[in-house]
Amino acid sequence: MSSTTLPPLSLSILGVEPLDEFIREIADFVHHMIMTRPGGGSEARVEVEAKIGVLRDRISGQRLALPVLVETILTPNDIDLRFESNMSANQHKHFNTLLNELMRISNQPSHPSSPLEYTHLKVIDSFFPSDHQDRDKIRVTRDENTGNVLECVRKVRLGDLNIYSPKRLADWRISVNLEIPTPHPVGTPTFTRRKDRICYSHEEFNIDLTQVKSSISHNAPPEVLHELELEIARPALLLSTASKRGDPNSPEHERNAFDELIRAFVNNARILVKNANDGWHRAQ
Amino acid sequence: MSSTTLPPLSLSILGVEPLDEFIREIADFVHHMIMTRPGGGSEARVEVEAKIGVLRDRISGQRLALPVLVETILTPNDIDLRFESNMSANQHKHFNTLLNELMRISNQPSHPSSPLEYTHLKVIDSFFPSDHQDRDKIRVTRDENTGNVLECVRKVRLGDLNIYSPKRLADWRISVNLEIPTPHPVGTPTFTRRKDRICYSHEEFNIDLTQVKSSISHNAPPEVLHELELEIARPALLLSTASKRGDPNSPEHERNAFDELIRAFVNNARILVKNANDGWHRAQ
Repeated sequence: MSSTTLPPLSLSILGVEPLDEFIREIADFVHHMIMTRPGGGSEARVEVEAKIGVLRDRISGQRLALPVLVETILTPNDIDLRFESNMSANQHKHFNTLLNELMRISNQPSHPSSPLEYTHLKVIDSFFPSDHQDRDKIRVTRDENTGNVLECVRKVRLGDLNIYSPKRLADWRISVNLEIPTPHPVGTPTFTRRKDRICYSHEEFNIDLTQVKSSISHNAPPEVLHELELEIARPALLLSTASKRGDPNSPEHERNAFDELIRAFVNNARILVKNANDGWHRAQ
Repeated sequence: MSSTTLPPLSLSILGVEPLDEFIREIADFVHHMIMTRPGGGSEARVEVEAKIGVLRDRISGQRLALPVLVETILTPNDIDLRFESNMSANQHKHFNTLLNELMRISNQPSHPSSPLEYTHLKVIDSFFPSDHQDRDKIRVTRDENTGNVLECVRKVRLGDLNIYSPKRLADWRISVNLEIPTPHPVGTPTFTRRKDRICYSHEEFNIDLTQVKSSISHNAPPEVLHELELEIARPALLLSTASKRGDPNSPEHERNAFDELIRAFVNNARILVKNANDGWHRAQ
């Protein structure tokens, strides 16, 4: 055998790729959140999203620094940190350009994946206190142009996982929430925000690139944030695949569908984070 | 479209798996060590090995504890730690059983990978001081039965990467060394050790399961260690693939061969670490 040419190589001594610990951890977490969620009626939707941003030390405001070289999942509540889901206007523009370009090439027949699609949304969110728990709020979403109510939900946070990504300019956070449709609240909102959102959709995922203008009062200047989120598009699919995960009575592709969905979700989040290469928002 | 069945899913919005940051980091490290190695003559061999063991705080002796949930690569020299390349006799027996069983099933025609092979070696290593550097030592290896000299080398440590693996009972360390054949030294050895090694070989890798008995003097009782190492079997292949890594003038499979070799190496190390499930050596 030539000493200088690599013969065909098995993936491992077992002939297969070993379990991907990172993706498995996230799948286990999301699955646990879903299976142990509180009620909320049959209308309640589970939302799984990854936000791109920066993990910061809560005291110093500096980006988190751990003695590790590559992406890893943080143990919940071990470090006093906050997640800043915000980027500069330039960064926002950079992602807008990248995603528009990807949409263009994904519509060419040679592209190895389905085409991306695109919607532009302008909505106004108004937040009202909820009777349930101090942390929960009721969000009323209206179409900015028509004023029609699109959605009226109480959002319940189920859990988060923070992913530290020292090789990249951004970190990310996976959040699992419950959105429970509720009747329109009475009274006046505690605050409102205007969202200008470009929603790219690809297969089972939405990538939302949003400019958010918040105002607490009419006199204060609005705060402007730029956000990038990836979410699983169909809550019903998420629940049905979660319920069959590992079920020996389901066919193999149904048993594995939840983990496949999470794998593609993680792959997409990683691709977004890897492309945060045009300067990130720095804390003042 | 049914809301409960997952349609075929692309790997990502790009249609491909994103870069595996972990494997890439290790490949970059090993490649850098190889390309910047000191001379040592054409006979010098580069050794790349992964040792299975436990990362311990140098002061407390406790296993390292970082606030992360999954395997990650530690930044070199950031934490004051030592790597303990030792396991209990029971753990050693557990791996012996596992690897014997894998060898058995890998010889069945239905197995998805090449068969493992097996050698049993009993050697005596004698160590002599080197004129070169205090850290380097000259190792003379003799066959225990015949007394014949098998090898006489000076080993130069080039670098290590530590991998922390909080979900598993063991961590691991990747080491890159240079082994330079030298003439047999004169004088008496500073210490000797007896190695009883089972060497499993699979394609381009050796898995060495070794019992090491060291003695500093004839009066002291020997120290007994149990070690598990994975190494890349052919230094010449390692060097030739490293030299063509990313070379635009080489055909694609030669350009990628180094990274493929490292991927299989990492996969095998992960499989070994994942199977360290039978109780690890605890510090006293």
